[in-house]
Amino acid sequence: MPSSASRPSLSRLGEFGLIRHLRRRFGRIGPSVLRGIGDDTAIVRAPAGRPLLLTTDLLVEGIHFDLSTATFEDIGYKAAVANLSDIAAMGGRPRHLLVAVAIPPTRTPEDIDRLYRGLMQACRRHGVELVGGDTSASRSGLFVSITLTGSIEAGRPLTRDGAGAGDLVYVTGTLGDSLAGLALLAGRPRRRPAAGTGTPERYRRFLIRRHLRPSPRIPEGRFLAVHRLATAAIDLSDGLSGDLAHVCEQSGVGAEIEASDLPLSPACRAYASEHGTDPVRLALTGGEDYELLFTVSPRNHATLTRLARRAGYRFTRIGTIRPRGFGLRVKLGNGTTRRLTIAGYVHFQRRRVAPEEALWSR
Amino acid sequence: MPSSASRPSLSRLGEFGLIRHLRRRFGRIGPSVLRGIGDDTAIVRAPAGRPLLLTTDLLVEGIHFDLSTATFEDIGYKAAVANLSDIAAMGGRPRHLLVAVAIPPTRTPEDIDRLYRGLMQACRRHGVELVGGDTSASRSGLFVSITLTGSIEAGRPLTRDGAGAGDLVYVTGTLGDSLAGLALLAGRPRRRPAAGTGTPERYRRFLIRRHLRPSPRIPEGRFLAVHRLATAAIDLSDGLSGDLAHVCEQSGVGAEIEASDLPLSPACRAYASEHGTDPVRLALTGGEDYELLFTVSPRNHATLTRLARRAGYRFTRIGTIRPRGFGLRVKLGNGTTRRLTIAGYVHFQRRRVAPEEALWSR
Repeated sequence: MPSSASRPSLSRLGEFGLIRHLRRRFGRIGPSVLRGIGDDTAIVRAPAGRPLLLTTDLLVEGIHFDLSTATFEDIGYKAAVANLSDIAAMGGRPRHLLVAVAIPPTRTPEDIDRLYRGLMQACRRHGVELVGGDTSASRSGLFVSITLTGSIEAGRPLTRDGAGAGDLVYVTGTLGDSLAGLALLAGRPRRRPAAGTGTPERYRRFLIRRHLRPSPRIPEGRFLAVHRLATAAIDLSDGLSGDLAHVCEQSGVGAEIEASDLPLSPACRAYASEHGTDPVRLALTGGEDYELLFTVSPRNHATLTRLARRAGYRFTRIGTIRPRGFGLRVKLGNGTTRRLTIAGYVHFQRRRVAPEEALWSR
Repeated sequence: MPSSASRPSLSRLGEFGLIRHLRRRFGRIGPSVLRGIGDDTAIVRAPAGRPLLLTTDLLVEGIHFDLSTATFEDIGYKAAVANLSDIAAMGGRPRHLLVAVAIPPTRTPEDIDRLYRGLMQACRRHGVELVGGDTSASRSGLFVSITLTGSIEAGRPLTRDGAGAGDLVYVTGTLGDSLAGLALLAGRPRRRPAAGTGTPERYRRFLIRRHLRPSPRIPEGRFLAVHRLATAAIDLSDGLSGDLAHVCEQSGVGAEIEASDLPLSPACRAYASEHGTDPVRLALTGGEDYELLFTVSPRNHATLTRLARRAGYRFTRIGTIRPRGFGLRVKLGNGTTRRLTIAGYVHFQRRRVAPEEALWSR
């Protein structure tokens, strides 16, 4: 960006000026890019002898993000992670990024610079290069559209439709942290903590970081694909119950989850305890954890455990795939079983489903 | 869509219901698609031994389209053409489409169905398949984000940076029709026609069709790439003067355009005559013609003419590439020469540059 003494507005800089700036600052390109930002299309080398993965996401102000709880850098970072996580869920290697933004007149070139800085912070550590995009004005909110390509070894993608009855259900990492972090950011604790009993500061920071700076599970996805260990996989963007339902629907199966096996961070437990909420509900409904859920044939259980330990990955078994007629159920600590309803984002009702809302049906 | 007796609203149908519907209706897939809509990413075959083209556009209600002058089908069609035209300008073959939409609560599933119908109408004739996308609510206008992939023979893409002084400048088709068509649709004639002297109805229909249903010049682009006849190319989306400026900037050259050589349709001439405007200005500034502008070395002039005649393509020579210091000039019919300023869309000022506005600088 030019020095603060002479900062141009977006309308002064113009679309072409903005594109030139973004190309100079973020368009560094490696040998796989034959032509980056600045022509009618980008030209990249196709993955030799490998299928191509393609994914796109459109992030909308007031729906997917809120500038009162996230900076432009946060928004860019998370927009990239949402797509990197989709590539991770296929077991792929992410390659090239296209970014289109529609920008309200109240925003400055510095805001857009920060958005791209966040995007590239998430992308560069995975070797992803920015090769193209589009910029436009918006009459209302900020819109960010991301397209990411990736590659995968032929015959090895992790899809949603391969789970079979008897397969074991696993997740990476811990669940519910992102939703707890969002609640902390939004500053709406449901109960005021008694003096000295609040969630410790290091836990608060951890949960907020899990919400704003999630890690896409690219290495874990690669590991599962390369070793052909998973029968199905999905990333947890909408919440465990909703995303598990996608796997079950597409595989034509049911599933049973053990509530007591759900991996919960100490921070999430502390948050739940403070706010009088059930951490299991946070884990089941919390969106944007960007962990992977995957299923493994029981005969690969021992191999998975051995290889994961050697590679240093944390995979937690949380349940079992059942026949379709079983439906989706969760076994609670007290021995009772409940049917899971599908929660998560409900975009067209323009609200996020809160953990305290009806998750359970009879 | 379900029968009108039981039409669900978008919020009833939900995001997943809408995706299921779109996949069923528009997600027909051929042998290049290993996995279409419905998993974490699409999986397609990479173009064997060929570079991959990638382009994305974000279309914004009130900036790129207006629902008072275009239907949802029109908008879908033009969104696809904007991207097909980018592939055409590289000489490529379009392959796979991703579509993300953010939908205001006032819109119905039928509206979205129409949008996709328009998109696929433009795409299917070029063998392009819909493989993925995203849907979201929007708190304000409709946003449509399109990503298109393509392939190109190695070493043959038509880029913007190869024009050299002395090269001849060509365009496909006729220019200015789209802007005249838009003006007719917007119903803002600058002068009222005397009785019986208006633009004939068949001309009006032609101009409006050129605005709403432009043809991306895929075959012409392929022809130029395969025969290696063009030194540079660009598609005319922002208007001839602006797009020619891009080629000149990236090739480090200037250009001289002969106003009397600009290809004008009889309909555009009739419109200009009726509205007391200069058709040359329409041709120079009118955006969204989606014709190709390309440059050809003089030694290939005869070959181009011969092969184009045989193939049935209409290419018109409109000027000559000059050294950089020459700048961008247009030679008018009266023998005078004017410098061209860059016109076209100015998004961040949220208005379209009208042909009557200052096009000429001294």
